[in-house]
Amino acid sequence: MIPIYEYGQVPNSEIFARDNIASNVEGAVTEILAQVAARGDEALREYTLRFDKADLTDLEVTEAEIDEAFAAVEPEFVEILRQAAANIRTFHEKQRRNSFVVADQPGVVLGQKIVPIQKVGLYVPGGTAAYPSTVLMDSIPAKIAGCPQLVMVTPPGADGKVNPVILAAAKIAGVDRIFKVGGAQAVAGLAFGTETLPKVDKIVGPGNAYVAEAKKQVFGRVAIDMIAGPSEILVVADGTCNAKVVAADMLSQAEHDKMASAVLVTDSGELAKAVQAELERQIPLLPRSEIARASIDNNGKIIVAENLDAAIDIANEIAPEHLELCVDAPFDYLDRVRCAGSIFLGKNCPEALGDYFAGPNHTLPTSGTAKFSSALSVDDFVVKSQFTYYTADALAKIGEQVAYFARKEGLDAHANSITVRLEEKKQ
Amino acid sequence: MIPIYEYGQVPNSEIFARDNIASNVEGAVTEILAQVAARGDEALREYTLRFDKADLTDLEVTEAEIDEAFAAVEPEFVEILRQAAANIRTFHEKQRRNSFVVADQPGVVLGQKIVPIQKVGLYVPGGTAAYPSTVLMDSIPAKIAGCPQLVMVTPPGADGKVNPVILAAAKIAGVDRIFKVGGAQAVAGLAFGTETLPKVDKIVGPGNAYVAEAKKQVFGRVAIDMIAGPSEILVVADGTCNAKVVAADMLSQAEHDKMASAVLVTDSGELAKAVQAELERQIPLLPRSEIARASIDNNGKIIVAENLDAAIDIANEIAPEHLELCVDAPFDYLDRVRCAGSIFLGKNCPEALGDYFAGPNHTLPTSGTAKFSSALSVDDFVVKSQFTYYTADALAKIGEQVAYFARKEGLDAHANSITVRLEEKKQ
Repeated sequence: MIPIYEYGQVPNSEIFARDNIASNVEGAVTEILAQVAARGDEALREYTLRFDKADLTDLEVTEAEIDEAFAAVEPEFVEILRQAAANIRTFHEKQRRNSFVVADQPGVVLGQKIVPIQKVGLYVPGGTAAYPSTVLMDSIPAKIAGCPQLVMVTPPGADGKVNPVILAAAKIAGVDRIFKVGGAQAVAGLAFGTETLPKVDKIVGPGNAYVAEAKKQVFGRVAIDMIAGPSEILVVADGTCNAKVVAADMLSQAEHDKMASAVLVTDSGELAKAVQAELERQIPLLPRSEIARASIDNNGKIIVAENLDAAIDIANEIAPEHLELCVDAPFDYLDRVRCAGSIFLGKNCPEALGDYFAGPNHTLPTSGTAKFSSALSVDDFVVKSQFTYYTADALAKIGEQVAYFARKEGLDAHANSITVRLEEKKQ
Repeated sequence: MIPIYEYGQVPNSEIFARDNIASNVEGAVTEILAQVAARGDEALREYTLRFDKADLTDLEVTEAEIDEAFAAVEPEFVEILRQAAANIRTFHEKQRRNSFVVADQPGVVLGQKIVPIQKVGLYVPGGTAAYPSTVLMDSIPAKIAGCPQLVMVTPPGADGKVNPVILAAAKIAGVDRIFKVGGAQAVAGLAFGTETLPKVDKIVGPGNAYVAEAKKQVFGRVAIDMIAGPSEILVVADGTCNAKVVAADMLSQAEHDKMASAVLVTDSGELAKAVQAELERQIPLLPRSEIARASIDNNGKIIVAENLDAAIDIANEIAPEHLELCVDAPFDYLDRVRCAGSIFLGKNCPEALGDYFAGPNHTLPTSGTAKFSSALSVDDFVVKSQFTYYTADALAKIGEQVAYFARKEGLDAHANSITVRLEEKKQ
């Protein structure tokens, strides 16, 4: 049963379960990376046969296979995917940035040019857990950023096919090319390039321990989005909330993973007890009850705070991945909330709405990193190139000062690069 | 002497020297981190005595010491610092972002709130190389972002004092508190917090191998800006350029560090030879000629390309930290340049102008990472918190679809969190 604590009884640093299970896959992944770097496609095919039981000649998904996939998915689901994609697009369009220029001094032009990252790789897990929502969330911001080459990799089934729902989502999201390869070998292929797979500049997307380790190992050679920790929800609820609803929200997080954390902070001791009882009632009814049970019993907590401000202070301190503010006037508190990956306002806004449909991204900072990092966004798919232009006259005006500055830092060659121009101009 | 190559003779991946010298400081840094985590200020004072020969009671710089520093710095230099700070501020103000809201469906409000990172630590190297320019470049974007607590750490001299130029720059830049502690111990203090040093959310700023290793080790617990590799310049110059000027620009990079790379790509064989000769003439005249000699001889290259477009293609492939376009109509090529940390346009714009004065940031991506990362900017000091609000009616309208989506992904508790609300609404 979920424990109930008084405010302050649990140190903030211990409210969420934050110890990741140590991965013992480092050596295996290093070997896979080396093989793919050395032998390219040949290694990709061997690993795909070994791990996915698929014997493939051609790794790339064809247009015909995509048509087939659309025919195989229920039309109403295709429609939901399209509507979700539209909402995600509307939200992320607002993140698009303009290049800017500063031209307010004679002969001086400064600016910042926004350029899409040229080649992006997207990892999509396969097997039983097919997450088309993640395909939409990771692809759409990249295409809005203008990335000209967005390449998806995903493991095939033993029949050599990719889950049709994944293919449909990829097409709707605007993915440019899709390859049937998964695991550490897919990450390696994207990082090094092979005969078939293009070498990319950045790899995004979730995966199992092998994929996460491979992303870690290629980080630096290419950029990666993040290595996500276990999922977390913090529900702040006042005494007017329905315990059934609050418990259901907590369980939507708990069903993900035994390491997931679902925590309630409330100003009502009564609600605390009611939610505790509701969790016990609802857990056995879930298909994934074993996982939810472990998550709630090991990591779940209910904390009774003096008032809602104190509850929000806890949220700011622990910076949860998901924060629900289940209160009557949630906008009254919007200024007070500082650190959360995604905030769900009011009593009609379960986190699941954001996982699938509303528009904001569901790829979020975990493990307290919301204090210094943000949801995946269009920003993650662009670079900002600064530029500087001076005329000879503009340089002449301030050149001596800049050279003086350089000499003060002991860098005479820096100073020379300016004075040599001033001298040449005089002649 | 610098070698001259034909276009294509050197693989793009070998144009810049990119092997970092392996650091053997890992173990020493781990020990320092553990000591500071366990013993706080006591450890900071011990290490400061051991490494900096300063025996300090109070680690924090006082207002009186800052006044003293301003009195000790030449007034004309204070004026240059102020002017550089004003330019940096003007440029970075343009990077400030607004929160946004999307409210275009009945009962639905989505948004993204920009929040400054609450506590930022800035490392500033001490000793012989005092870089007030870096203090300005790293601090001003943080203050424009609105970070309420910007804390600087820098090692004191044996007299227990900080270089006055550093203190003056810090004050001009708006740094909130300054502490006399450097090395891995300072990074540890900021990452863990001590009795005196606040624990911060993010650490920025350059440092020696110990500082870089310490930043690597605390990464994840706190955010860091980057671990910079050796500095690089790629000069693209047409045949009308003055060889003296081009050579001076290359040497401004080469004097940094024996591992630094200065490369010229030109469409003129004549200029190639003239620059080769100019380098030989200028190197012996430099105070830091030994460093510049090593950098030019080991890592310098001149490449003769067919035309300027081909030269810019090389730049895009290797994504240099600094790119100079020393041509007559540089804006004609601005669209073609995709990947460079900072671009210097035209013949009157030496990189040094950007290092100190023009306004764009000088903390830049190295080692080809400009393909997927950018100059330090205001963005590095904010987090973006998404929020979502739905009314009960808005949820009712799309709830069944979202629940269907969740069940398609096998996550029934996600679906429940929506359907339980729909049922409660019906009652």
